[in-house]
Amino acid sequence: MLKIIAKQGRARRGILTTPHGTVQTPVFMNVATSAAIKGGISALDLKELKCQIMLNNTYHLHIRPGDKLIAELGGVREFTRWDGPVLTDSGGFQVFSLASLRKIKEEGVTFHSHLDGAKIFMGPEESMQIQSNLGSTIAMAFDECIANPAERKYAEHSCARTVRWLERCKAEMQRLNSLPGTINNQQWLFGINQGCTFEDLRIRHMKQIAKLDLDGYAIGGLAVGEPAEDMYRIINVVEPEMPEDKPRYLMGVGTPGNILEAVRLGVDMFDCVMPSRNARHGRIATWSGQVNLNNAKYARDTQPLDPLCDCPVCRNFSRAYIRHLLKAHEMLGMRLAVMHNLYFYNTLMEKIRASIEEGSFDRFYEENFVKLDARI
Amino acid sequence: MLKIIAKQGRARRGILTTPHGTVQTPVFMNVATSAAIKGGISALDLKELKCQIMLNNTYHLHIRPGDKLIAELGGVREFTRWDGPVLTDSGGFQVFSLASLRKIKEEGVTFHSHLDGAKIFMGPEESMQIQSNLGSTIAMAFDECIANPAERKYAEHSCARTVRWLERCKAEMQRLNSLPGTINNQQWLFGINQGCTFEDLRIRHMKQIAKLDLDGYAIGGLAVGEPAEDMYRIINVVEPEMPEDKPRYLMGVGTPGNILEAVRLGVDMFDCVMPSRNARHGRIATWSGQVNLNNAKYARDTQPLDPLCDCPVCRNFSRAYIRHLLKAHEMLGMRLAVMHNLYFYNTLMEKIRASIEEGSFDRFYEENFVKLDARI
Repeated sequence: MLKIIAKQGRARRGILTTPHGTVQTPVFMNVATSAAIKGGISALDLKELKCQIMLNNTYHLHIRPGDKLIAELGGVREFTRWDGPVLTDSGGFQVFSLASLRKIKEEGVTFHSHLDGAKIFMGPEESMQIQSNLGSTIAMAFDECIANPAERKYAEHSCARTVRWLERCKAEMQRLNSLPGTINNQQWLFGINQGCTFEDLRIRHMKQIAKLDLDGYAIGGLAVGEPAEDMYRIINVVEPEMPEDKPRYLMGVGTPGNILEAVRLGVDMFDCVMPSRNARHGRIATWSGQVNLNNAKYARDTQPLDPLCDCPVCRNFSRAYIRHLLKAHEMLGMRLAVMHNLYFYNTLMEKIRASIEEGSFDRFYEENFVKLDARI
Repeated sequence: MLKIIAKQGRARRGILTTPHGTVQTPVFMNVATSAAIKGGISALDLKELKCQIMLNNTYHLHIRPGDKLIAELGGVREFTRWDGPVLTDSGGFQVFSLASLRKIKEEGVTFHSHLDGAKIFMGPEESMQIQSNLGSTIAMAFDECIANPAERKYAEHSCARTVRWLERCKAEMQRLNSLPGTINNQQWLFGINQGCTFEDLRIRHMKQIAKLDLDGYAIGGLAVGEPAEDMYRIINVVEPEMPEDKPRYLMGVGTPGNILEAVRLGVDMFDCVMPSRNARHGRIATWSGQVNLNNAKYARDTQPLDPLCDCPVCRNFSRAYIRHLLKAHEMLGMRLAVMHNLYFYNTLMEKIRASIEEGSFDRFYEENFVKLDARI
């Protein structure tokens, strides 16, 4: 299902054929937490923004409106009117970051909803059932997300449980995919590598989960506060252990520079709330670096957000107008800024893909790695 | 500039030729308070929603980002990228409803900004200067908005001052339109009829301002809490005093039923925040009556907001999805609901126009006057 059509060093240019359409990799997935991108962006807008994969959050949709309701309505693709591939996370990250009063046992995690305090249990089977109800293209394995830095003893213990949980995820997904009423009975399962910043734990864990022959593999538990150098160091040692013929997904990353570095190290897939969250706060990604639109110098600036960008926002609106809208807390300001930033990220991936095909990725990396993350 | 092409009873079907384009009347103007429709709707979206005139609020734009800044950038049409006609209110209504610590004198009103408490003075000249800076197509006269019911003595006093202020508005607008740097030196001025719910005051005031030969006339000071019957009674007595060849604008109105009744009484132009405000709270205008999307019965409803509507929202999204988005406080929910409601209002006006042309307005009125305002 993944065909690598070009390589430059470890950087891979691939075509991923999913049950819901073809994806050109490396790809950035656009995060629609509660079945919509924050900032008033619809599934129809996403097409215009060159989005290839929409990502939905399992925890949020389980709590509201409920995955059973979404299943009744035909799954999240029918619900949102996004007809391309969808990746759902496992809910694990949110259980460990948003919910309160967690209790972790071998069976799974008991926690309280951040919305109404309702007591909820989620283990590997429940996560698979919810994701099956959502009918996504790619489901993520349920794992424990522990903070960096962590105690080695705890990390080792958690890694072992993550392997056991992954085996249960795989068995449950096979069962669900075989049921007659399943919305997407070709749903894929990606395993998630853990092990904090301990290289040997990461490598051992990756070797263990690679044996399960899943549809893809993610590197999780990074970009949670550790220095970028630690993240690159871990990717660097884990990547050689990842199956060549399976997509590799670095979860929750990141800045344009982070993405360039991770592509250089062999990663195919990314997701992050950064472009939309930054946009809502006036931080605009441009081909010259990051612009802070709140800066007074943009109040009378009639240029587009990025004069080098051809997105629907830059073709029509000025920095001065969008800055005013953000200052006045008008939703349109957030919408326009988010549209631009998502288009920027999706175009960044397009340029990365073209450069790998042309053999010019190293030059593209050198030109942009520092520049795109700089604040101007 | 106003050509009446058909009449049925007092209902008028007209074509209004403005310096910024032609408007088919009766028309509903779409309210973009701070240079954007609340709900993340851009000027480009408005075209798709059949909007003909955008309305901007002088008070809001004077305070933020400032009318001088907007003038530097070419006026509000250039700022927002709306290339059709724009009407700006005078700021008076907001000065009397939003600002604090008002002091009214013959010269004008001193008040404190609701944003930062800054002391601001606005009189007829200032209001004209601000609206000239905004470069709108139609400027509204600066008047005092007093509450209903009011003491007759005060209303009489206020009416007299409103006439004096109107004369000053007219003189100042003529001066501004003659200046070389003026953004729109063909800017129109509409006078505003006042007099609370006192019929004789209303009539006398209307006669006085009609003599000033302005570009159009509005009925102000209604829809501020009085019963709808009082409003209809006042329109009924004022309308015969309004010049036949000038557009008639009922400010701040209203429900679909209110609009139908006022068209029947000879009104050409309307504006109201109701469709966008209602939408943001899940109250959806439909051809069968008003739907409250918050109602649990819509949670699994796969129908569009209105099965009889062909707007971009109804062509794509379900009640269940939009209800979920509103419950989850996702901006997209507000955006989709606002888009639908504005399209509904603009389409209502289109149907009203067609029915006057066809001589079937009475039937259209009878079929819809009660039904469209009913909660279903």
